[in-house]
Amino acid sequence: MRYALVAALMLSSGLAIADEGQWQPYQMPSIADKLSERGIQIPAKQLADLSQYPMNAVISLGYCTASFVSPQGLVVTNHHCAYRAIQYNSKKEHNYLANGFLASDQQQEPSAGPNERLYITEAVTNVTEKVTHDLSEEPLTRYQEIQQNSKQLIKACESDDNYRCSVRSYHNGLEYYLIKQLIIRDVRLVYAPPESAGSYGGDIDNYEFPRHSADFTFLRAYVGKDGKPAAYHEDNVPFTPKSYLRINANGVKAGDGVFAAGYPGSTSRYRLTSELKFASQWLYPTYADYYQRRIETIESMSATDADVKIKYAGGLASMANRMKKLNGLLDGFKATDIVGIKQQKEDDFLVWVNREDPEQAKVIENLEALLTEEQSAQQQNYFFTIAQSSALLDAAKKLYRLSLEKQKPDAQREQGYQQRDMKLFAGRLKRIDKSFAVAVDKMLWQQDIQAYLAQNNRVKALDSLLNQNLETELSAKLDGFYALTTLKDRKQRLKWMDAAPKQFETSSDPFIRMAVALHDTNMAHEKAMKTLQGKLSTARPAYMASIIAYNKANGWPVYPDANGTLRITYGMVDGYQSRDALYKQPFTRLEGLAAKHTGAEPFNAPQKILDAIAAKQYGEHKVSSVYADPRSWICRLFSCLDKPEEFNSVPVNFLSSVDTTGGNSGSPVFNGKGELVGLNFDSTYEAITKDWFFNPTITRAVHVDIRYILWMMDEVDRAENLLNELELVK
Amino acid sequence: MRYALVAALMLSSGLAIADEGQWQPYQMPSIADKLSERGIQIPAKQLADLSQYPMNAVISLGYCTASFVSPQGLVVTNHHCAYRAIQYNSKKEHNYLANGFLASDQQQEPSAGPNERLYITEAVTNVTEKVTHDLSEEPLTRYQEIQQNSKQLIKACESDDNYRCSVRSYHNGLEYYLIKQLIIRDVRLVYAPPESAGSYGGDIDNYEFPRHSADFTFLRAYVGKDGKPAAYHEDNVPFTPKSYLRINANGVKAGDGVFAAGYPGSTSRYRLTSELKFASQWLYPTYADYYQRRIETIESMSATDADVKIKYAGGLASMANRMKKLNGLLDGFKATDIVGIKQQKEDDFLVWVNREDPEQAKVIENLEALLTEEQSAQQQNYFFTIAQSSALLDAAKKLYRLSLEKQKPDAQREQGYQQRDMKLFAGRLKRIDKSFAVAVDKMLWQQDIQAYLAQNNRVKALDSLLNQNLETELSAKLDGFYALTTLKDRKQRLKWMDAAPKQFETSSDPFIRMAVALHDTNMAHEKAMKTLQGKLSTARPAYMASIIAYNKANGWPVYPDANGTLRITYGMVDGYQSRDALYKQPFTRLEGLAAKHTGAEPFNAPQKILDAIAAKQYGEHKVSSVYADPRSWICRLFSCLDKPEEFNSVPVNFLSSVDTTGGNSGSPVFNGKGELVGLNFDSTYEAITKDWFFNPTITRAVHVDIRYILWMMDEVDRAENLLNELELVK
Repeated sequence: MRYALVAALMLSSGLAIADEGQWQPYQMPSIADKLSERGIQIPAKQLADLSQYPMNAVISLGYCTASFVSPQGLVVTNHHCAYRAIQYNSKKEHNYLANGFLASDQQQEPSAGPNERLYITEAVTNVTEKVTHDLSEEPLTRYQEIQQNSKQLIKACESDDNYRCSVRSYHNGLEYYLIKQLIIRDVRLVYAPPESAGSYGGDIDNYEFPRHSADFTFLRAYVGKDGKPAAYHEDNVPFTPKSYLRINANGVKAGDGVFAAGYPGSTSRYRLTSELKFASQWLYPTYADYYQRRIETIESMSATDADVKIKYAGGLASMANRMKKLNGLLDGFKATDIVGIKQQKEDDFLVWVNREDPEQAKVIENLEALLTEEQSAQQQNYFFTIAQSSALLDAAKKLYRLSLEKQKPDAQREQGYQQRDMKLFAGRLKRIDKSFAVAVDKMLWQQDIQAYLAQNNRVKALDSLLNQNLETELSAKLDGFYALTTLKDRKQRLKWMDAAPKQFETSSDPFIRMAVALHDTNMAHEKAMKTLQGKLSTARPAYMASIIAYNKANGWPVYPDANGTLRITYGMVDGYQSRDALYKQPFTRLEGLAAKHTGAEPFNAPQKILDAIAAKQYGEHKVSSVYADPRSWICRLFSCLDKPEEFNSVPVNFLSSVDTTGGNSGSPVFNGKGELVGLNFDSTYEAITKDWFFNPTITRAVHVDIRYILWMMDEVDRAENLLNELELVK
Repeated sequence: MRYALVAALMLSSGLAIADEGQWQPYQMPSIADKLSERGIQIPAKQLADLSQYPMNAVISLGYCTASFVSPQGLVVTNHHCAYRAIQYNSKKEHNYLANGFLASDQQQEPSAGPNERLYITEAVTNVTEKVTHDLSEEPLTRYQEIQQNSKQLIKACESDDNYRCSVRSYHNGLEYYLIKQLIIRDVRLVYAPPESAGSYGGDIDNYEFPRHSADFTFLRAYVGKDGKPAAYHEDNVPFTPKSYLRINANGVKAGDGVFAAGYPGSTSRYRLTSELKFASQWLYPTYADYYQRRIETIESMSATDADVKIKYAGGLASMANRMKKLNGLLDGFKATDIVGIKQQKEDDFLVWVNREDPEQAKVIENLEALLTEEQSAQQQNYFFTIAQSSALLDAAKKLYRLSLEKQKPDAQREQGYQQRDMKLFAGRLKRIDKSFAVAVDKMLWQQDIQAYLAQNNRVKALDSLLNQNLETELSAKLDGFYALTTLKDRKQRLKWMDAAPKQFETSSDPFIRMAVALHDTNMAHEKAMKTLQGKLSTARPAYMASIIAYNKANGWPVYPDANGTLRITYGMVDGYQSRDALYKQPFTRLEGLAAKHTGAEPFNAPQKILDAIAAKQYGEHKVSSVYADPRSWICRLFSCLDKPEEFNSVPVNFLSSVDTTGGNSGSPVFNGKGELVGLNFDSTYEAITKDWFFNPTITRAVHVDIRYILWMMDEVDRAENLLNELELVK
């Protein structure tokens, strides 16, 4: 019990500093003093340099973060990020998902699948001037000019096939950066724990703590013999990264400063209070209801149909995850008056604006009006949008749109319909089969249409197609759609990619006919939305400029909202007050994993792990304490040395106050010297509202402790080759 | 969050001392050094004296503990202990259970009901010599002699009607004490919170922490004008207790020493490991299954029948409570290898015995043989016992037994059938109506008979009555029982109390006939059991004498297992490590209560409480800190004074390490000066196994904080009269 003590002690020292911020690497020197206050010794300037250690070892899977950990292109990320790669290689005769996988040598490393990619960010260039230079005042034109300028920059950047480029908006359009990433196309599977360890606790433990997940997997980047990216080929050789992360086998202890790097997807920290109100009062409750209905429908249809169960398992899991997030948001708004807190901050800001720059106050009024307009449109279009929810209708709409876009020169096409997008486009069409069953698609769609028909925001084009108010009539009509369409067939779908608009417009396929019939209305909505975005592309940056000026006036550095680009966040290893009288300590132990084991999924730990725990086979990975350095003044005072066995286990997962969000999965967590000490994989339920408001007292990210990973490699799986490949320091 | 810190600090200082022990008051001087180590300043000698403050203010309700808190006989106990009294006074037009009750003055205090009693322990006398003097060697005779000696002592002691006396065995029969208690027969209801506050969290929070219960109720003792106990009469006057508890309105803080006094019912700390094995491997699982089946049956029958629901609600609640306790026991045995721990201790003891007194080793072997015999008998009789589970059969058996016992002189009758027991006997017969429905009694009984018929331990007397192996036949037969019996009628049941054996033996009532038919078998079982108890009455005390000698040799004072008599236990206000990485802090706050409120039972806090919390209307009951004295060296070091708002609320419930069990409900919890600071009302789930083994790291009792009680009186209910009656100190 003593370890509660020092955890709490550590904690007290951290109260003064809030660790909010998903910083652009170039900003690090501006927060150098905060980093050193946290005990982060690696120079801020070094962190700002993407061509230097450690940032040049931090890479992306496109949807997750990963990092190089050996000179031979070895990559570590989360098990849940590599799930698809493990699934791809799982067969009845060797079920790697169930049993885990360890390649005995490089020859045994299978391809992670033809669609897996690793992206190495090589350059991030400020292109604000190029994107926003000489923009038109007319909103729709302005919107299109921004798109056009971006596409030109991307095209120039992608002249080498081995690169993927993107232009991202920062500070809601105040700045634009061009991101240039090298694409590794031959990714292989190296080492993965069984799913029962990798996602121990499953959905029940998702967003929860205490946690005991082995959420890690090792992959390897391969390139052609010439060292250049290439598609999978057996002659390919391991990629030599510019650098790779050193691993500190001693890990961290409570109170240590840490930082994490990765690709957080999206946050809304600078959104207006009115936007938060809209989200918390309409958007989230509406979508929570929507997902709940879909989950119930799919679950009940899965119960009686094994094929449906398999096909919709992935979708169901991701909806369950979204539901937990939505519930977490709604619970969080109930627990803390975030609207009130944000309103107070906004009021303070407005007082400042009115004093410093009264003209600017009008800009904000204008922004509020545009937001009201945007929200109304969203509410009005909601039922029309869900009434088009069939996966086949969606495919039909996209195919028809493609035929129209193809009429234009490539550079002028809408993003997503350019030549560079076609592989992805075809991939999506192919994948429909894996997650589609007529009965389910129809039932969900019918429910959505009925919801549409039951309300007053009607759209003529849709009403003229579907005006069956009787459920039986509607059902019969939809049955006809599915009976007659050719889009259920994968080859047919792909064939439509080469069809001309005329072929769509004369087709008798009911889904194609519907796509064509709704096209004008959908385009009108899109145009209205683009026009509004054009207006917002003036209003939002103006607002953000004020916010930044206000923050600077107060001496607060400003980081941009997350946008899927490389960021750095720093914090401290730390527990938190979860509920009244309930304190969550930052480290979990192997014994806690064993105590949770019931034998029934998701608490069915692999026997080899349970055996190693029962045998106390901890090797050199056991630590006596994670709560304080026994030589510290705190311990001299409280004689920690009397209790060297206080932790006496291998740490499994740990908490820190770093600022993360979706996309940070797999992010390397570093100690103050920039050595790898863990992998980020989740955050706590109480902190789900952090996308809107970072509450430093309860916001914690959940990491796999590097000592657990090393213990698994060493004591459980005897992955000696791999261990030898790593650069371990102490 | 800082308060986690000091809680943990406090905690660390307590590791050295285990607070195990439900001590007889006379033993206090022998543990005086431990008390003062805990900061308990009241002299041990004073605690040992039942005629002095505070022990002469600690009283019993027969099933719970209570205490005097004013010179006018005001009594405080738990809400759940006074439940029957509140229910008795609840009518449609004034539902005190739902809305709470506060008498505006003494004239408004209603009777708590004719069966409520307060018992004031006036004397506890060692009568070992008188009970065990010159006992026969023949086991059955020996058993009867012990009973006879006890009854004689009781009879002499009860010569004054105003006293209830009992002879209790201590140390498994090594010692006997005569307990003499004054009986207060006029008990009135004074002040009770609504049930939604008093048992906030209901069954869900039962045995759990964090907890937010207002589990307190005030009663008042009344006596005749002559100052002597009397039945309820409007002319009665408040009783003047010898003393009453001072209340410390400052309460306690983490790390403070506390003690509690009360009437713990039963523990098994000195039982042999073989007994624990039997309990954990057969007894508890068997009864868990049995209750689970009954709960499911009653719940399903309640769902469709409102009358059944009402009648069985109480029984169901108590079975749910027992189930949670059984599950807690079974979970606890899984979490900690208590059998292993006890075996290790027992092995150490046996080594000592073999060395010090080899003869004694044979005594222990003999005891083990007797225990095996006892366990076999229990297993063999199990199905025969449950096959007699009908409430009407039970009544018939007791009535027939009464007619037989009445043939003997009163002093020689079996306990429970003596003249002194007749009121209680009649009361039980009357109360059957309130918790009985033919359909449920029959269904449960039938299931039990079927379980009996499905196994091999058959009893001829029962087989000859019920040998219907077909469910339908059995059901029809039992329907006949209920159709023909007159025992469903309360008057008829009571009339049988005066019937002679002959009348039973010639009765055509099927339940009476069955009772008569099974009588000889049941008596044979009882005789075998008494014979075994006679043998154990030699073997157990001999074993305990060795245990005590062993403990004394090691310098460990020995307290006897709980047996429903007055005990004192000491400990410290303290949190605990609940699970891996989950630390429970010792105090809950009003804000935690509000955060749990959902509006749906059992989390439907009274609006008046929620309003007072929302208005931060804490009066003088709010404390800045419960985690350390701001003037302490710890706080000087960590500058607690910088954070005077660290707790900043009214404490609701708190944890301490005092050693309690069932019967300790309502026990006063004292600070080191012997001032009332809380009421014990529960213990934590992890600690349920403490009846067998006290694990000091996880065993915590749950108390209502006196500051919450005072806040309710002062800020919520404006109970000024009552507040003025109390002696508040700071």
